[in-house]
Amino acid sequence: MPSMINRLAIYNDDLEIFSMKLVRFGDVGHERPGIVDVNGDLRDLSGYVSDISSETLELEVLSQISALSTNSLPRVSGNPRLGSPLRVTGKFIAVGLNYRDHAEEAGMPIPKEPIIFMKANSCVVGPNDDLIIPRGSMKTDWEVELGIVIGSRASYVTKDEALSRVAGYVVVNDVSERQYQIERGGTWDKGKSCDTFGPIGPWIVTPDEIDDVQNLDLWLDVNGVRRQTGNTATMIFGVAELVSYVSNFMTLYPGDVITTGTPPGVGMGIKPDPIYLVPGDEISLGIDRLGSQRQRCVAWSATVATSN
Amino acid sequence: MPSMINRLAIYNDDLEIFSMKLVRFGDVGHERPGIVDVNGDLRDLSGYVSDISSETLELEVLSQISALSTNSLPRVSGNPRLGSPLRVTGKFIAVGLNYRDHAEEAGMPIPKEPIIFMKANSCVVGPNDDLIIPRGSMKTDWEVELGIVIGSRASYVTKDEALSRVAGYVVVNDVSERQYQIERGGTWDKGKSCDTFGPIGPWIVTPDEIDDVQNLDLWLDVNGVRRQTGNTATMIFGVAELVSYVSNFMTLYPGDVITTGTPPGVGMGIKPDPIYLVPGDEISLGIDRLGSQRQRCVAWSATVATSN
Repeated sequence: MPSMINRLAIYNDDLEIFSMKLVRFGDVGHERPGIVDVNGDLRDLSGYVSDISSETLELEVLSQISALSTNSLPRVSGNPRLGSPLRVTGKFIAVGLNYRDHAEEAGMPIPKEPIIFMKANSCVVGPNDDLIIPRGSMKTDWEVELGIVIGSRASYVTKDEALSRVAGYVVVNDVSERQYQIERGGTWDKGKSCDTFGPIGPWIVTPDEIDDVQNLDLWLDVNGVRRQTGNTATMIFGVAELVSYVSNFMTLYPGDVITTGTPPGVGMGIKPDPIYLVPGDEISLGIDRLGSQRQRCVAWSATVATSN
Repeated sequence: MPSMINRLAIYNDDLEIFSMKLVRFGDVGHERPGIVDVNGDLRDLSGYVSDISSETLELEVLSQISALSTNSLPRVSGNPRLGSPLRVTGKFIAVGLNYRDHAEEAGMPIPKEPIIFMKANSCVVGPNDDLIIPRGSMKTDWEVELGIVIGSRASYVTKDEALSRVAGYVVVNDVSERQYQIERGGTWDKGKSCDTFGPIGPWIVTPDEIDDVQNLDLWLDVNGVRRQTGNTATMIFGVAELVSYVSNFMTLYPGDVITTGTPPGVGMGIKPDPIYLVPGDEISLGIDRLGSQRQRCVAWSATVATSN
């Protein structure tokens, strides 16, 4: 167990059920760990853990954090920026065409097994940070998705074992540049990893806060117009199956993220003509129980700072 | 500058040229940083830096390390295991079909622009660690490659600027499971990221040790039979062009790795019948000036430990 959480040991009750919203707040590159209490107030966790990352997301550490009395934690004043609720130094795995209706709108066959690609972990940003339209990009698109945060090592786990390896769930906007993804040769990764293309948050919600992860509504608006509506019930491959499946190709570690595909309504699928994002556009998106994000689209410039 | 290298500041001569071989040595998960001196002896750097990773690979830090007198560093006795010469917490980007002859043997057209895919950073291991054949795998294959280690932030850099962002070069075995890569749907990533599929090392060689990075011989043997022979002169897209190209899609940071494609001679391309790796096989591979690796293939089992 990491030494940084030694102070938590006195609270260790070996809880098996815990219910929390974890956040990171503060300026880019200087985020501090926090927790949202039952009243919705932000509390500072930095006296107990240095960050929310691969070490703190181990389930046994989360259990200890959940045993803290939130009233004893300093209340954070003001309205600080939220960063990604975890620092991603491992994998950011994504699943393609995982909602039946979205595969149809994209004109693609229903996959026989999950389609896996990767997003660079350098694209991770906070839930409300600016979305940078890459230099010269013409086809930047949106995708609201349910993200899974891994909390325990998972290698060749069965579908039945899979959910026991999950630390929590997050909202992800799997931002995609369709020309880079599809028309520039090679795999999709090129259009999935641009800076700021991975807003995560606002918080990590632990599984015990969610009755049924396969029955959550998702939505996304662009400039106030509803563009995506879906429910995780229509996933082709559900959360447990995805964790199990990926773990058959590579070991999953605490702090890895799997984002699980998007429902219908992406810009590329709009008839008769696709709609793509331009500077000035405002995106808002969210998932039942997991909170919402809001991004302003900005033109690329050499001075825009990006970080997770 | 990271506080962990404060002690180095007294050596800072703002050197612009430096010549080093950097290593990490010790047991899995407990690697220590080291340097290979002019006599080929291993010296312990852990009194100066805690690890070789994104923070230490910044060019200004490397410059300070290079100003140390290697004679003043403790000599490491014995023959410790070598880990990957860097801990990869960022991107592990790979380039496909980047040697003309290899594209031909794979029956693929010559790419018009670089093909990019990603390897999970969890697949990184030491240069001589066992290579685990995944459970049930029938088509595990080898690929000797030149890897680029980034030493300075690179976003939209030109080809002329690109080499100034390079910390050094490494040997990479871009191990690939061809069924997972090609026959299981989706992108290549699924067959490129299995545990132990990313041996890196033995060391990071700084650019000043290499006369011409586009004129290095590569080779790979399986069970003593030469399988791959090539030279970086026949790359379709050279090192400078690749760094520039990738930096147009995503910002590169110190400690990111780009592996640059493999020359002809992979198992999949052998006529009349492909040859794939099985437990007991021995692979050795190397690149001029960058050292060599040796892996023993072992069957997957639940108890095999893997880490970078």
